[in-house]
Amino acid sequence: MTDSSSLYAQLLEKIGEVADIRHALALLQWDQEVFMPPKGAHARGLQLATLSGLEHRLFTDVETRRLIDALRGRTDLSPEQTALVRETAHDLDRAVRIPESLVRLFAEAQSRAYEEWVEARRASDFRRFQPHLKTMVDLSREKAEYLGYAESPYDALLDEYERGMTASKLRPIFDTLAARQSVLVARIAESTHHPDASWLDQEWNEHAQIQFCEEVLRDMGYDFEAGRQDKSVHPFTTTFDVQDVRITTRVNPRDFLSALSSSVHEGGHALYEQGLPLEFRRTALADAPSLGLHESQSRLWENIIGRSHPFFRRYLPRLRELFPGQLDQVTSAEMYRAANRVAPSLIRVDADECTYNLHVILRFEIETALIEGSIRPEHVPELWNSKMRVYLGVDVPDDAHGCLQDIHWAHGSFGYFPTYALGNLYAAQLMEQVKKDLPNVWGGVERGAFAELLVWLRDRVHRHGRMKNSAEIIEAATGLPPSPEPFLRYLEEKYAVLYPV
Amino acid sequence: MTDSSSLYAQLLEKIGEVADIRHALALLQWDQEVFMPPKGAHARGLQLATLSGLEHRLFTDVETRRLIDALRGRTDLSPEQTALVRETAHDLDRAVRIPESLVRLFAEAQSRAYEEWVEARRASDFRRFQPHLKTMVDLSREKAEYLGYAESPYDALLDEYERGMTASKLRPIFDTLAARQSVLVARIAESTHHPDASWLDQEWNEHAQIQFCEEVLRDMGYDFEAGRQDKSVHPFTTTFDVQDVRITTRVNPRDFLSALSSSVHEGGHALYEQGLPLEFRRTALADAPSLGLHESQSRLWENIIGRSHPFFRRYLPRLRELFPGQLDQVTSAEMYRAANRVAPSLIRVDADECTYNLHVILRFEIETALIEGSIRPEHVPELWNSKMRVYLGVDVPDDAHGCLQDIHWAHGSFGYFPTYALGNLYAAQLMEQVKKDLPNVWGGVERGAFAELLVWLRDRVHRHGRMKNSAEIIEAATGLPPSPEPFLRYLEEKYAVLYPV
Repeated sequence: MTDSSSLYAQLLEKIGEVADIRHALALLQWDQEVFMPPKGAHARGLQLATLSGLEHRLFTDVETRRLIDALRGRTDLSPEQTALVRETAHDLDRAVRIPESLVRLFAEAQSRAYEEWVEARRASDFRRFQPHLKTMVDLSREKAEYLGYAESPYDALLDEYERGMTASKLRPIFDTLAARQSVLVARIAESTHHPDASWLDQEWNEHAQIQFCEEVLRDMGYDFEAGRQDKSVHPFTTTFDVQDVRITTRVNPRDFLSALSSSVHEGGHALYEQGLPLEFRRTALADAPSLGLHESQSRLWENIIGRSHPFFRRYLPRLRELFPGQLDQVTSAEMYRAANRVAPSLIRVDADECTYNLHVILRFEIETALIEGSIRPEHVPELWNSKMRVYLGVDVPDDAHGCLQDIHWAHGSFGYFPTYALGNLYAAQLMEQVKKDLPNVWGGVERGAFAELLVWLRDRVHRHGRMKNSAEIIEAATGLPPSPEPFLRYLEEKYAVLYPV
Repeated sequence: MTDSSSLYAQLLEKIGEVADIRHALALLQWDQEVFMPPKGAHARGLQLATLSGLEHRLFTDVETRRLIDALRGRTDLSPEQTALVRETAHDLDRAVRIPESLVRLFAEAQSRAYEEWVEARRASDFRRFQPHLKTMVDLSREKAEYLGYAESPYDALLDEYERGMTASKLRPIFDTLAARQSVLVARIAESTHHPDASWLDQEWNEHAQIQFCEEVLRDMGYDFEAGRQDKSVHPFTTTFDVQDVRITTRVNPRDFLSALSSSVHEGGHALYEQGLPLEFRRTALADAPSLGLHESQSRLWENIIGRSHPFFRRYLPRLRELFPGQLDQVTSAEMYRAANRVAPSLIRVDADECTYNLHVILRFEIETALIEGSIRPEHVPELWNSKMRVYLGVDVPDDAHGCLQDIHWAHGSFGYFPTYALGNLYAAQLMEQVKKDLPNVWGGVERGAFAELLVWLRDRVHRHGRMKNSAEIIEAATGLPPSPEPFLRYLEEKYAVLYPV
């Protein structure tokens, strides 16, 4: 019998090469969204397809299987090594079910759909995007059949982002959220204490906005030696290595809070990625166990920290320097209230904390129906618009502000949206514990000193990579299994003060 | 027998995938030099090594050989198809001689050497770079042994950049150039008509410099929908597709002519790449037959066009707008003379046309000695400095301004430098013909209307890709085989007027 350390070394080399191709793919995608000139799209689609196919072929070949089979059940591995074999086996078992031809087709279609989505959104023309949506739905349904599922084909896709989660487990959680959040939103609508955010409606210099976001990111602990921030249509975080984690943001010249929240959000993701176990770079362990847990980091920073009163007390003086004369009459309390104003709105990424999950639930309902085949792509705009009226009471003026606003379906990422809501729940549950463990956390925020918080997050969440699953990480960190209650408590308490009756 | 069109289609698919990986590699390198954060270097080296190895494995596998062998000699192929089979066979015959392990080692060492070169150059510390130079020399010598050669291992490397060229063919050409150019430089030194370029020593706004370069590039015909310009330490052009050709430039705040010449130079390369046969994208035919011919395009635009008097007559008014008040006293004739002032200097990329080839010849002598093993890397600084005194009469103050100035040896690109000198020769020979064929070419330059010239270059050079070799293209375009005479004529005539005795 070959000794375990030699087999393990062979496995590391093998999956390291696969990781290299994945990271090259991530760079091709990052470039496509950040810097690529428009005519580069055709070739880029082929490049993505070729590398996706190669990555799949290399990962699923007999050699990986041989190494995994030989290492599974060995008792002389360390706990981390055992976890790595387990997680790699999981990924392999999933990957081998999908033929390389589908992987290539998917990547090519994804790239074309992305380019058409950009144009369709610009022109606010769903019809232009519709055939590409159909292709992505069809290919995703095909993928789900290959992957297999017990109840719904949607579960097969969801599992990729949030392992073990299913549509039928999500529904009761979403029902609770929808019920309690609707009550909260209705109560807020009746409040007589609506914030005045008219001061926000000014021209905010773009360079100063970017400068400010970079300063906040530095304060948070984001390492610019191991990352960078650029602009893109749809902000995102991407990883080429634990030491090369990049974010993008967007700038709204009439609302500096937009770039700020986007940068702090992606910064939260990036801190997670930069905090993954460096010794396991190029392996499955240098990854989050689920997108929901990933999102908990972005939402914790974006909303709980970045929309807190201490945060604005800290940064108002600096904002006054960066935007001379534009904020002299604005207090930190007014800024805090403006950043947390609640109003049912059209765009998910701009939604307040009280309505955000409603946007997610709407998408979840539409995409499960698409994948289960109970609706067709051409029904999406009408369904979207009617659900927006029911859940949020708003009329959708056009598809750009409706069903074309998000990139996810163009990427064929069905099952991704629910992780945003789960992220909100995990974030609130983690933060309840942070406040117990670090009684002076708000004092730190008020000084722009986030190190204590980051150390806590690194210790309880980041450093574990995929050695534990999301529920285990949440339970180990907070003493309780994941639950929507801390989030609803957080929301109800915060907004009772912000919007007294 | 399988019919040719089916085999040919299979070959296209196969080499298309190889091209996709090469283009992904080009993106990884472009990013490393343009945007990558410093800590990303370690992982990037591994990614480059993995993809280089994969590209090599995929290209050299039995399938490519089978298709090439089956297609070679078929008479029912079109001339273009025959050329494609011939060129692919050439690349394959070369590639199969090198083991994949060496390809990977080379890529990894290249990436490390690049990072150390950046630091060593910053610190002007050759000792820091020396072990990496040794590695690149050793690996290149090993590569040369695998490739095989008749006279010198250097020839095996040179052949990659300039097919069929050898050190012994280059030496008489370089002797002629060195002799005639030295006489010219000496004569110029004795001239009493030295231009006054003191007006250039001002602060030139960086944004205005970039703006100006982009306008000139647009006028030249560079398609920004199929490319972009960024900044890097060492300007370069790279191609991810015929429709995604990117350039970089550098900005010297005290000398706007630096960014201008760099942008026009890379723009010349990029026009070539954007003009390659689109129908042969992802094949060997969508490439130049040699780097010397490639360089003919950059040097023609940079020097013959971009340093001409009509060029400055065209752009002086615009420069006055972009740099208000800074050029009111400067005439186009003064600008023309300043852009063509001759002075032996330290940095190749800043060298004037009269001394430039001397920089190349110095490098050629050192790198042939390194590859032939007659000197060792530790001898390079001393040898460099003494040759600089002999050929150019200048004292090298430090390694950053001496043997560390160029990126090429860090890339392991031994045999690349001579193509710069050959590019100068080809450029002048082509331009002699342009002036015959397009008697009004200077009128066009003076109007910023370069379309006629670009059409000529596209027709005589770009569109052929690798369907003909460099000598065939030069001879078909000019009626004569390549020769140094047109270049020496051009130089002697131009500078006799600029520097009258």
